[in-house]
Parts: sequence; structure tokens; C-alpha cells
Amino acid sequence: MMTEFEFIRNIKKKYGLDRVGDDCAVLPKDSKTDLVVTADLLVEDIDFRLDWTTPEFLGQKALTVSLSDIAAMGGTPRWAMLSIAVPETLWRGDFLDRFYEGWHRNARKWGVELVGGDVSRTPDKFVVDSIVGGDVPAGGAVLRRGAKVGDAIVVTDRVGGSAGGLKLLESGRRAGEQNESWEEALLSVHLQPSPQTGTGVFLRERKLANSMIDISDGLASDLKHICNASNVGARVTAESIPLDPNLRNLIEDFEKRFTFAISGGEDFQLLFTLPRENVSELSAGPIDGSDHGVFTVIGEVTSNAGVIEIVRNGKTEILEAKGYRHF
Amino acid sequence: MMTEFEFIRNIKKKYGLDRVGDDCAVLPKDSKTDLVVTADLLVEDIDFRLDWTTPEFLGQKALTVSLSDIAAMGGTPRWAMLSIAVPETLWRGDFLDRFYEGWHRNARKWGVELVGGDVSRTPDKFVVDSIVGGDVPAGGAVLRRGAKVGDAIVVTDRVGGSAGGLKLLESGRRAGEQNESWEEALLSVHLQPSPQTGTGVFLRERKLANSMIDISDGLASDLKHICNASNVGARVTAESIPLDPNLRNLIEDFEKRFTFAISGGEDFQLLFTLPRENVSELSAGPIDGSDHGVFTVIGEVTSNAGVIEIVRNGKTEILEAKGYRHF
Repeated sequence: MMTEFEFIRNIKKKYGLDRVGDDCAVLPKDSKTDLVVTADLLVEDIDFRLDWTTPEFLGQKALTVSLSDIAAMGGTPRWAMLSIAVPETLWRGDFLDRFYEGWHRNARKWGVELVGGDVSRTPDKFVVDSIVGGDVPAGGAVLRRGAKVGDAIVVTDRVGGSAGGLKLLESGRRAGEQNESWEEALLSVHLQPSPQTGTGVFLRERKLANSMIDISDGLASDLKHICNASNVGARVTAESIPLDPNLRNLIEDFEKRFTFAISGGEDFQLLFTLPRENVSELSAGPIDGSDHGVFTVIGEVTSNAGVIEIVRNGKTEILEAKGYRHF
Repeated sequence: MMTEFEFIRNIKKKYGLDRVGDDCAVLPKDSKTDLVVTADLLVEDIDFRLDWTTPEFLGQKALTVSLSDIAAMGGTPRWAMLSIAVPETLWRGDFLDRFYEGWHRNARKWGVELVGGDVSRTPDKFVVDSIVGGDVPAGGAVLRRGAKVGDAIVVTDRVGGSAGGLKLLESGRRAGEQNESWEEALLSVHLQPSPQTGTGVFLRERKLANSMIDISDGLASDLKHICNASNVGARVTAESIPLDPNLRNLIEDFEKRFTFAISGGEDFQLLFTLPRENVSELSAGPIDGSDHGVFTVIGEVTSNAGVIEIVRNGKTEILEAKGYRHF
């Protein structure tokens, strides 16, 4: 029995929605530049819940998910379109004003111009399709398929915080209410994620990444995507993965916390591979200071195609296809 | 009280979804070429009904609505993205296969490549966001704002057929069932419209159109959009408008039929203006023979900004803001 996740992947492959099998489609723009373009569909009660977020946060995140795809190609975002289907209950009132305020604030920050889109009614659920186009130098887009045996595997910033925030929302916590500071921090990672735009551009400009993806499905799944696209394997050291430190308050046991963090989606960090000898060059970035740019080597690329090994305390376990199998 | 239509227009203006106020956004591509790009959102039970169409027809039409926007700029369509939100009831079975078959058949016909998109679940209603990108020579896109006083106003092919088909669907008729041939023809105009792609390119290449729009809201509304964007008025001769001949079987009275036809949307014909002296050059087109290319002069551009006059039997009436006021 396929999971919904696998089913959607299959649909995308089957019908050509995933032609390049990457975060963005890459299209020739001019002799020096390629266009990278992505679409992300968010459906109420599937991809978000209105009572868990604010209209501003939702507008912000709707753009971030697409900016993150552009970042994963090493692209510079330029323009966006936004298609929204709005139920009658949201027509009136300030919902749309606040949604667009969040969207536009994020767009201004990253220099993205809204150039079009569409509006329709919907019988009940709010739907957003976020489309972003960006530039990369011709042939310079960082794909998933370039990982080489022996490469270091690197992740930006921290992982698992978004899954932690989601778990808090599921348990009834809401942002801005009487939370501990660690709870507020996790909620913020989930509700107001930032794209790693500056870091993506830095890695592409310095030619530091052989392959790259953004962590939207979860570190384990997204590493698998790189391995499959590159026809390689990966060996990861469990203790080296930079788990969000606030997760410690949520899940005490390391193994449970680790499994939780690498299985959780929507971190919007970058996961990439590069030759070992170039790892020291990462300390120069990111060049624009606009995001964190903390890099952690978590493992290395192996020749064991499609297999992800997790090493902990000198013992090696195989990550199973459907997610992480704990020790 | 605003109509839903006006409300959506306002939303698009207010939030910048309609920046150029045109059928597509126009973005610089290279020194010789601009990118034209459009998004069209279709929501089940708002924009279509699954029991009124077939999955193939729906896939075909989802692409046509966007191809028509590209045509209205004089653009050549190149690539597309498709975001779909699918309810569980449609996951299984052959719905998606058939939907994509209709989409791809249309895409092959017009040389459009599917490069990406997204898939999500939806609690109940099927949602499609259709995105198409195309090319025009730099600065060559035909906008809505170029109509000049004295220009002839021209429409392609026939109008009102789609509204006729919709009326038949509302009254219980279904395509492929036991219909008269005129009924089947009207149903086909509504369910399987064709974009005027070849004609749009012809008009742009020969520099024959000062302003252009596709008829998606209805001839009356779309002529108004040209007038508003160009700060001009229009005088139209009622008898000259090429009503779909099959409408005669549906609505006997000419005035009712006329009002019905110019108020009905989704004809996906082109409506454009050009200098009187160039009208004879229209007979050369369209160059690729891929669509009808029948041109009818229906009136002229006036200096009476924002006012559309309808002339019948020598009497002139003003078309009211909210639609056509009958004689």
C-alpha cells in the first residue's frame, strides 16, 4: 500500500509534473541565464489550518515554500504569481488584507515582484498556488543528481524545528499565547519559516554544491531524493545532525528525538553535497548575510546506491525506504 | 453592491495580481524576447462541474484558458505548469489519466511542454491552477491599452456559443447524448474551446492590432476592459456582431439572443482594434492555418471614454456598466 506521499510522487512522475525531478524546472532564458520556476499548491486543512496560524503567517509561508525551491537550485528569485481560491466566509473582513501583507513583506525582503495570478471563489476551503520565477547563470542550476562518492553531506542551520512546532499545534498550543520561549521558538519555525535564499546563491556562485535540495519532506526523505537522483548512497552520523535544540524540551529520548527530527518536513533548510576538500570554503558564506549560513557536515556520499546508513555509537543501521527505522 | 465579478476584479487590482492589467504579465527575457506568463485557477462547482464535462474535456479546457491569454498578447506558448488538488474520490480510477490525456493532447497540438507543477490532496473539490509561459519579441506584446480613436473593432470567429452550451448544460443536456446537431455544437464550444493562438501571433507579427483581449468574461465586459485601459469609448453595430448561428435555435428573439451572446463568457475569441486602413490586411491571416481566422468588424473606437454605444436600426443605446441593457 502506497502512502499518500508516495502516491503524489508517482502522480508527479507519471504525468510529467516532475520532468527534471528537481525543486524547480530549468528553462533557457538567454545566452547567459536560465529561468528557474516552481509552483507550490497549499490547500486548507491539508497543508495548513486557519485556526493554527494567522493570515500574515500564511501569506509569508506561501511565498517561502516557493522561495525555498528557488534557493535549492541556487537561484535568485525575481517574480511571483499567486492564484487564490477564496471561500465566501473569507471574502469579507480583513483576512485577504492580512494574507497579502504577510506575502508582500516577505516578497519585499527578497526583492520579488508580484506580476500576476488569478482569483476564484471556492465552496469552502482556501487554496493558494504560489508560483515563483528566478534566475541562475546558464547551466549553473544546482540539481539533485550531481552527488559524487566521497562527497561530504552538509545541512544548513537546524532541522526538526518545524515538526516540533507542528506537534505543539496538534497538542493545542498556539503562537502568541502563553507559551514557554522554547515553544514559541518551535511554533515560529513552523509558522514563519525563512528561505535559505542567500545561502543557495552563495553555494552556486562559489560552485560549492555538487547537488542540492531543500528540506521540505524531511531530511531523511530529501537525502533519499539526492541519492536516487545521483545514483549514490549516504552514510550519516546521527550525533552530527544539528537537531533544533528546543526539541530537547519536547522529546527527551535522543533516539526518538532524532527519528522525529529527520522524518519531519518543512524545515526549508538546504541539504547539499560537495567534495571533502572544499568544506573549508563554506566558512566564507553566505555572502549577503541575509540568512544564517550555519553549515554542518553530517556524513558522506557512498557508492551503495539508494542506501542510507545511519551511524550511531559505531553501530550502523539502514534507513528504511518509508522513513527512519530507529536503532 | 458589487457583483462577485467586480469583487474579484477589485481583489486582483488591490493586491497587485493584475499589475499590467492585461491577459498576461510581460517580463524581459533577453534582448530580443519578452516572457509572457499567465495563471488561471479553476475550482470545481465554481468554474466547472464534473458531471457536465468529461475528464478529457476538462484537461483540454484547463490549458486552453491559459493559451487564450497568451494568444491575446500575440504570444507563442512554450511551456506550462499544472498544479492540481485532488479529492480522495478521484485518486483512484482513471480520472487523472483521462484529465492529463486531454491536457497533453492540447499541449502537443500547440507545442507546449509541461515542465512542472504541484499536486496536493483536497478535502472535496478538484482544483486546477494552469500556468503557461510564452514568448513575444521584446516590446511587442499586444496590450489592452493601445486602442486609438477611429480604430476598427474586430472580433474573431463567433461569439455566444459558449454561453449557449452552458445554458444547455444547465437545462440538463449532456455532450454525446441524444442531442440535435446544433445542441452538440454549442456544447462543444463550451466544453472544448480552442485558443486563437495562430491568429494572435499573426496579428502581432503583422502589427495589425493596436490593442487586444481574449473574450473570457464576455464581449461586452471585455470590450469595456479595452476601452478603460485605452481611455477611449466604442460604438458597436448590433447586427454586425457574429453571433453563433446555433444560438438561433436556443433563443428566437434577436434582442434577447444578442444580449445573451455579448454577456456570456468563455468564447476565447480575440477582440482587438486596428486602424481602419489596415482592415484589408486581415484577409492574409492567419498564417499557420491552425485556427479559424474569420474576422468581423463590429464597430469603431470613439473618444467617448469608457462609454460603449450599441447601434441598432439607426438607434443608439448605451451599454450599462454592469452588462448590456437591452433596447
